[in-house]
Amino acid sequence: MIVSPEEYRRRLGKLNPKIYINGERVTDILDHPVTRTVVEANAKVYELAQDPRYEEIMTTTSPLIGEKINRSLHICQSNHDLEMRAAMALLTSQKLGTCNYRCPGCDVLNGLASITWEMDRDLGTGYHRRLLEFARHLQKGDLALSGGVTDTKGDRGKRPLGQDPDMYVHVVERRSDGIVVRGAKQHQSGAYASDWTLVMPTAALREGEEDYAVAFAVPNGEEGITYICQFNAYSAERLFTDDPHLLGNPIYGQRETSLVIFDNVFVPWERVFMCGEVAYTQRAVARFAKMHRMNCGGACKVGFADLIIGAARLMAEYNGVERAPHVVEKLTQMVHIRETSHACAIAAALKGREEPEGSGIYLPDDIYGNVAKLNTCYGFWELMALAGDIAGGVVVTMPSEKDLQHPEIGEYVRKYLKGTVPAAERMRIARFLQNWVAGLHGVATWQGAGSAQAQKLTLYRLFDFDSRREMVKELAGLKDEGEGDRS
Amino acid sequence: MIVSPEEYRRRLGKLNPKIYINGERVTDILDHPVTRTVVEANAKVYELAQDPRYEEIMTTTSPLIGEKINRSLHICQSNHDLEMRAAMALLTSQKLGTCNYRCPGCDVLNGLASITWEMDRDLGTGYHRRLLEFARHLQKGDLALSGGVTDTKGDRGKRPLGQDPDMYVHVVERRSDGIVVRGAKQHQSGAYASDWTLVMPTAALREGEEDYAVAFAVPNGEEGITYICQFNAYSAERLFTDDPHLLGNPIYGQRETSLVIFDNVFVPWERVFMCGEVAYTQRAVARFAKMHRMNCGGACKVGFADLIIGAARLMAEYNGVERAPHVVEKLTQMVHIRETSHACAIAAALKGREEPEGSGIYLPDDIYGNVAKLNTCYGFWELMALAGDIAGGVVVTMPSEKDLQHPEIGEYVRKYLKGTVPAAERMRIARFLQNWVAGLHGVATWQGAGSAQAQKLTLYRLFDFDSRREMVKELAGLKDEGEGDRS
Amino acid sequence: MIVSPEEYRRRLGKLNPKIYINGERVTDILDHPVTRTVVEANAKVYELAQDPRYEEIMTTTSPLIGEKINRSLHICQSNHDLEMRAAMALLTSQKLGTCNYRCPGCDVLNGLASITWEMDRDLGTGYHRRLLEFARHLQKGDLALSGGVTDTKGDRGKRPLGQDPDMYVHVVERRSDGIVVRGAKQHQSGAYASDWTLVMPTAALREGEEDYAVAFAVPNGEEGITYICQFNAYSAERLFTDDPHLLGNPIYGQRETSLVIFDNVFVPWERVFMCGEVAYTQRAVARFAKMHRMNCGGACKVGFADLIIGAARLMAEYNGVERAPHVVEKLTQMVHIRETSHACAIAAALKGREEPEGSGIYLPDDIYGNVAKLNTCYGFWELMALAGDIAGGVVVTMPSEKDLQHPEIGEYVRKYLKGTVPAAERMRIARFLQNWVAGLHGVATWQGAGSAQAQKLTLYRLFDFDSRREMVKELAGLKDEGEGDRS
Amino acid sequence: MIVSPEEYRRRLGKLNPKIYINGERVTDILDHPVTRTVVEANAKVYELAQDPRYEEIMTTTSPLIGEKINRSLHICQSNHDLEMRAAMALLTSQKLGTCNYRCPGCDVLNGLASITWEMDRDLGTGYHRRLLEFARHLQKGDLALSGGVTDTKGDRGKRPLGQDPDMYVHVVERRSDGIVVRGAKQHQSGAYASDWTLVMPTAALREGEEDYAVAFAVPNGEEGITYICQFNAYSAERLFTDDPHLLGNPIYGQRETSLVIFDNVFVPWERVFMCGEVAYTQRAVARFAKMHRMNCGGACKVGFADLIIGAARLMAEYNGVERAPHVVEKLTQMVHIRETSHACAIAAALKGREEPEGSGIYLPDDIYGNVAKLNTCYGFWELMALAGDIAGGVVVTMPSEKDLQHPEIGEYVRKYLKGTVPAAERMRIARFLQNWVAGLHGVATWQGAGSAQAQKLTLYRLFDFDSRREMVKELAGLKDEGEGDRS
Repeated sequence: MIVSPEEYRRRLGKLNPKIYINGERVTDILDHPVTRTVVEANAKVYELAQDPRYEEIMTTTSPLIGEKINRSLHICQSNHDLEMRAAMALLTSQKLGTCNYRCPGCDVLNGLASITWEMDRDLGTGYHRRLLEFARHLQKGDLALSGGVTDTKGDRGKRPLGQDPDMYVHVVERRSDGIVVRGAKQHQSGAYASDWTLVMPTAALREGEEDYAVAFAVPNGEEGITYICQFNAYSAERLFTDDPHLLGNPIYGQRETSLVIFDNVFVPWERVFMCGEVAYTQRAVARFAKMHRMNCGGACKVGFADLIIGAARLMAEYNGVERAPHVVEKLTQMVHIRETSHACAIAAALKGREEPEGSGIYLPDDIYGNVAKLNTCYGFWELMALAGDIAGGVVVTMPSEKDLQHPEIGEYVRKYLKGTVPAAERMRIARFLQNWVAGLHGVATWQGAGSAQAQKLTLYRLFDFDSRREMVKELAGLKDEGEGDRS
Repeated sequence: MIVSPEEYRRRLGKLNPKIYINGERVTDILDHPVTRTVVEANAKVYELAQDPRYEEIMTTTSPLIGEKINRSLHICQSNHDLEMRAAMALLTSQKLGTCNYRCPGCDVLNGLASITWEMDRDLGTGYHRRLLEFARHLQKGDLALSGGVTDTKGDRGKRPLGQDPDMYVHVVERRSDGIVVRGAKQHQSGAYASDWTLVMPTAALREGEEDYAVAFAVPNGEEGITYICQFNAYSAERLFTDDPHLLGNPIYGQRETSLVIFDNVFVPWERVFMCGEVAYTQRAVARFAKMHRMNCGGACKVGFADLIIGAARLMAEYNGVERAPHVVEKLTQMVHIRETSHACAIAAALKGREEPEGSGIYLPDDIYGNVAKLNTCYGFWELMALAGDIAGGVVVTMPSEKDLQHPEIGEYVRKYLKGTVPAAERMRIARFLQNWVAGLHGVATWQGAGSAQAQKLTLYRLFDFDSRREMVKELAGLKDEGEGDRS
Repeated sequence: MIVSPEEYRRRLGKLNPKIYINGERVTDILDHPVTRTVVEANAKVYELAQDPRYEEIMTTTSPLIGEKINRSLHICQSNHDLEMRAAMALLTSQKLGTCNYRCPGCDVLNGLASITWEMDRDLGTGYHRRLLEFARHLQKGDLALSGGVTDTKGDRGKRPLGQDPDMYVHVVERRSDGIVVRGAKQHQSGAYASDWTLVMPTAALREGEEDYAVAFAVPNGEEGITYICQFNAYSAERLFTDDPHLLGNPIYGQRETSLVIFDNVFVPWERVFMCGEVAYTQRAVARFAKMHRMNCGGACKVGFADLIIGAARLMAEYNGVERAPHVVEKLTQMVHIRETSHACAIAAALKGREEPEGSGIYLPDDIYGNVAKLNTCYGFWELMALAGDIAGGVVVTMPSEKDLQHPEIGEYVRKYLKGTVPAAERMRIARFLQNWVAGLHGVATWQGAGSAQAQKLTLYRLFDFDSRREMVKELAGLKDEGEGDRS
Repeated sequence: MIVSPEEYRRRLGKLNPKIYINGERVTDILDHPVTRTVVEANAKVYELAQDPRYEEIMTTTSPLIGEKINRSLHICQSNHDLEMRAAMALLTSQKLGTCNYRCPGCDVLNGLASITWEMDRDLGTGYHRRLLEFARHLQKGDLALSGGVTDTKGDRGKRPLGQDPDMYVHVVERRSDGIVVRGAKQHQSGAYASDWTLVMPTAALREGEEDYAVAFAVPNGEEGITYICQFNAYSAERLFTDDPHLLGNPIYGQRETSLVIFDNVFVPWERVFMCGEVAYTQRAVARFAKMHRMNCGGACKVGFADLIIGAARLMAEYNGVERAPHVVEKLTQMVHIRETSHACAIAAALKGREEPEGSGIYLPDDIYGNVAKLNTCYGFWELMALAGDIAGGVVVTMPSEKDLQHPEIGEYVRKYLKGTVPAAERMRIARFLQNWVAGLHGVATWQGAGSAQAQKLTLYRLFDFDSRREMVKELAGLKDEGEGDRS
């Protein structure tokens, strides 16, 4: 089932989630200047799925319902699926200049699909069956799914039970008809504009921490859920303006997240997909991470890189310096960064494999997904630096585009901010670029899908040092095989 | 003469400069939320000069008037003067978290002092005498001086005369009593809150471009001058807020610049310090740059680095991770960046020399000043990346501090955003850091005092490759001397 | 046809190529301490092709002769072929710790196969047919093929005809039965231990430079060919030693190259594969480069990285510091570098395509191949630095392993150079690592398969900036489509 | 006292130290191809001290004997002394292209001077008086002094007493007339060609490890001392060649070190400068390190950088590419690296201070000395990479210069390896550069004067995080002072 953007907006308009921003309740999610950007970004994802040019990327046929679905709701069945999943992340970034908010939900769905299959196989539980049932429900309605992973953690030097027990989402009551959960998930991209949120643990858990080993789905607007939105200068700018066309990303805005509070939320058993199985939490997190590092960490940021490169190139042309050797060198370095992350994401998709064997579920290669993200971590700040270098100080010191139209000073602005093109165009692209190089993207890109340190730990753990040691000993003549070679 | 902050504010309040921001005229520079930050930063510089703890750094005795003056108005007479000049840049950055807006004026004054001495010596002009007279005037009133250097440039692929002739500030009329100038200077930090602005060319000029070889001083509020302020998300945030205490840098704000329009401004001859001497423009620019790269490019950003390091360390503590080896490694890397730029600025000051010989005017060593700035260019983005890494995603996804006090959701925020300290403190520092890692500072630091490319050109030009070639030939045995060594 | 290492050695022993090293003629290529390393490396490649464990990687069935062949002689027909070609480069590097000397020949063969197909199609020439005939000959005998690309160039500021005309290999006479060529190819890995060398131009040529647009094959030992070997400290060490087991790479040595002189060498027409078609030279070079950057630039160095990582890890263990956080961090960074290059090489193989369409010949994706090499350029020096950091100064200050056995001082060495293992093992691995971090590999890896600058030029040329500009304009609202989105 | 190089050689020739290289005893240190390079480097340092052009740098007047002395034997008394000490390190590197082997002895002497003054003051010991007496002896004879610091350490995961007790040099017997010491110092630059070696601990020691807290001086040739030389490819090349003029650094060679064994060496009390005072070991090491990081870590490598830059520039000219923008960019980057380390070393000297107060002994600033070294660590590998990039593959693949003179192939070499200059010059500089980019320098520069990790630990320990935290709190409004500012 593929629904229209209008249908999505209509459906969302019927909900009444508790959303706060800057101390005020948001009463109309569709119209509020900030929340509207999330709705419009989601709507664009619905629109792209209807666009024949993007059909292969944005849609597929679900084996669960036998119908065409938005790829955001698909559980990957092949390397081609993985490749298209990454391609979707790249395409939506190019088209939105912000988050495809259906992305984390997709990756949680895939991660849980794999681990629930394994739990059912090993433990005889029914989690996988329940999850597939939930997936069918989403696919049949083309519902927007968000994913909730990152706990608030409190004192990171302590585990869940060594401090305020609510720092990690956990079960506070087990009832015959379901469970009651409490806690909060932070950095939640677009949760308030989704139909459902799929929640899973953020970290490997140990014996004794069973209450924290919990995965479940909740509908938007559920009793006990409150969204407290991020608020920063870019939020203020959008709230303050009377003309969003003058903002850096006029329609889709910056990546909007919220702190999602679960205050004793009831979840019926049919929407519980893990409950107490601490031994599976590490693998659950790792499988979600495989998907998310390739997609959010890798391919998505490649699309952002395209926008930064395109804007830097435009500014170079508008400034009349696009042929200067140092500008060419810098643009080339930007391309290098972009293509490195892209190559890693592609390798992650094409060298992915069925996991667990027999499940029919495909996940990306873990090492390549992690290097995709790690290269993005380092490369993205460099992209920002290079773009700011090429474009010049005007990117951060420019007047408002309102000054352009002003009866008294408009002439000055048009005169003095022109380059090889009129000031209006140059300022438009400078503002666009400001959004990328003087805003949230540096930190957000680094931390999104896990900090660099998380990728490093994974790489160190995954790398087979033993086989390399053996190669060395053989060549150096420290092994019998090496001896044989000498003869 | 050292005046109080109040006296500065009182004096400024009498002026009525034409200032526009986001399409609106600013009518009270002392109270307007944005322009007020510049006034307060300047006022703090006046205050620091009265503080006995900072007397050696912030003040000196002028040989021109024989009185104690603010070091911002001093023409350096020794290596110690240069060292204290850099120390002032560092101190004010630590205290303000933004620009000491008297800095560029000081550096233009020193650069012009050197080149006008040389012009008078070579050409028999009277520029240096005029400049000293002007300096005495400033010193006697402890007036705030801004500097104007960067032209708008239009198409950077063309020279001043190959395009709209107003893209560089130039003389449009020479009269018996003075000159009339037209053009605009961009990225002008704090010009509208100064008493005077001292203007000089931005680039080396050639024969035929004499109209552009012009340096002069204009009082704030002069007929024909208009300031069009920068406008960005942080401007909007400040305009939008009803409580500036909740902003990242509550009192002093971000670095505020404006586009300063000179629309046929008359300047009497006694305030003209260069007019037509194209042969001296390259040296004029180079001497200003020596000062500004050491101060603005080097020492100032070392002070900013202190704030970023301090905040990153606080966040590490508040998150409970300050002892994690990777956090210690990252803090150490931040210290490394900070101390490298500082060492380069110190070397620039202590290895500076009288220039021209006999002038009594001291300028920093050019190579070390340039590497100070170049290391800052590369290092500052890395500082931002490291700080964002250490502090975590909360730096860009945090709710407003207003949510903290909200009757319904305040409890949630206090609960879920606490770390090892209450949420109020953690959020305050996170907001402080947001101002550094998700705002203008990356690009501004790169471009301020000249882009990295400018430093590179200077380094390549200054480096004595010949002597190194000779060393190599001697050691390699390609010279007679080398032959001698072999015997 | 797959022959044994012995057969290869036997065949080679019958030849009498003119080889000089350090001013002396090499009379027995099989036994000379330096040339022997090349022979042994080649022999190992023959051996690996007989090893059932490596069958899929090292061999395939040739469509030209319908028999199993060494993959070094295969013209790739699919993405799987490309992937296995890269896998062969990786495997042989792990097994040899030096060049698989059959690699450049393979890549020239593939590059020429593609361009000759295109020339025959466009121009009606018979080059492709001749080349396939030559390939059949190689495959039927399992002959070792070397590739010759890099000209000596003389003054790089000048083109072939603006200086001594022999600085680039060129045709000096066209005869009815063939051509006569003159010039030299430098940096030729392993040419003197191959059966044949396949030569092509090194750069794009213009009209008027037809004599330089020449590709051909010559047998080893041909009249007019002289090999002048590289000579450096590692050559001297090998010549000097009486026990090669004490060297860093005992059997296979460092990468050995020579300057190959073509002094009026006659080539019959059936072994001429390009002669005068300047319009095809740029594409010819690009297609060879696609292969070689993926293989030599990317995958091969991934195998070397494995050896460096393995040895660094061993030294960390032998020093007792393998758990120190900074050592773990550095090993992780080494893994990051290794996996990034590997991911890029894999993407190059799996996203490669048929070129020209209809030819049945597959070449790697150009962008990913180039980033594979470029990441290797930067990463390899960093690997060396990190390995040297982890292993410690002993890697460059260690005594000879002969000192270990010395009756008087052996006890001292065994006592004082032990770590967590006996000194003999620790010194063996330190010597192995010395070969990597204190020898030719830094520069050789940077320059091999083209300098970083070559990759940068390619990346800039290949990147589609236009489509990115359009994305930006659409999002920024500078296009009609963008307008439509706003409604 | 300043003696001539001849006098130094004569004196050295009378000694008969036990030196082994590659399993063979060195019988004539003055003539042996390897040890001779160390003698010649030392002799050159004697020669430079007699050269009037270098008088200020190479000599000073000793307050101990009231005579002119070689600065290598001076205990610094001022910032100017420190600056000249660093200048000496730079100059000798430029002149030698290898170690000034008198450098570590000088730095140990200064470090011990400071700590022995403090011990005498605190503990009433007589170490300082003894050390000054020893210094006078050295100065009166202009004797070459080596320094011994780095122990062999064995298992670095264990302390001295947790393993073979000889892994660190220590006292094995205390007698009425002196002590007996055992152990070994590794990486000892030039010890065997010095008159004396001054030994101190390598690390901070704890209670119970008193035997290891030992500093003393021993004459070269003392009973019980054996030198086992490093041996690597460059050693072999020098042993093997019949014409050292063809080597990369013909006269002075690579940095030669040895493993110095102390097998029950007796030291009379008047040459013991610490014995058991574990509480002072950390400071002793730190003070030596201050000197050595500025000199060996910083200034010395700046001189090496000059040689690498000079040679890279020559090769660019010889290749005809010195004006290519990417070559200019790379040379500029090399200059940037060079000047950064130099600026840091200068700041270390000029911001150094008397330590302890009242001692009259000046030591460099610790932070700047450490960043000098740390920037060198990172920068030197980059210099090598850039030089190899600019110069081209010929740097590692060139034939021997013997081939140039060969009757048969000499013509080929002269023809094909010429650039814009004859092949002889181009090959000479390529060989010179090979010594820098394909040898020991990368690892040696990183590890010399302590690994990067040592500098990082020092920086983290020295940096005053508290004051930065306070600055942040004040600006962010988290302090009472901040409150005051708001009013």
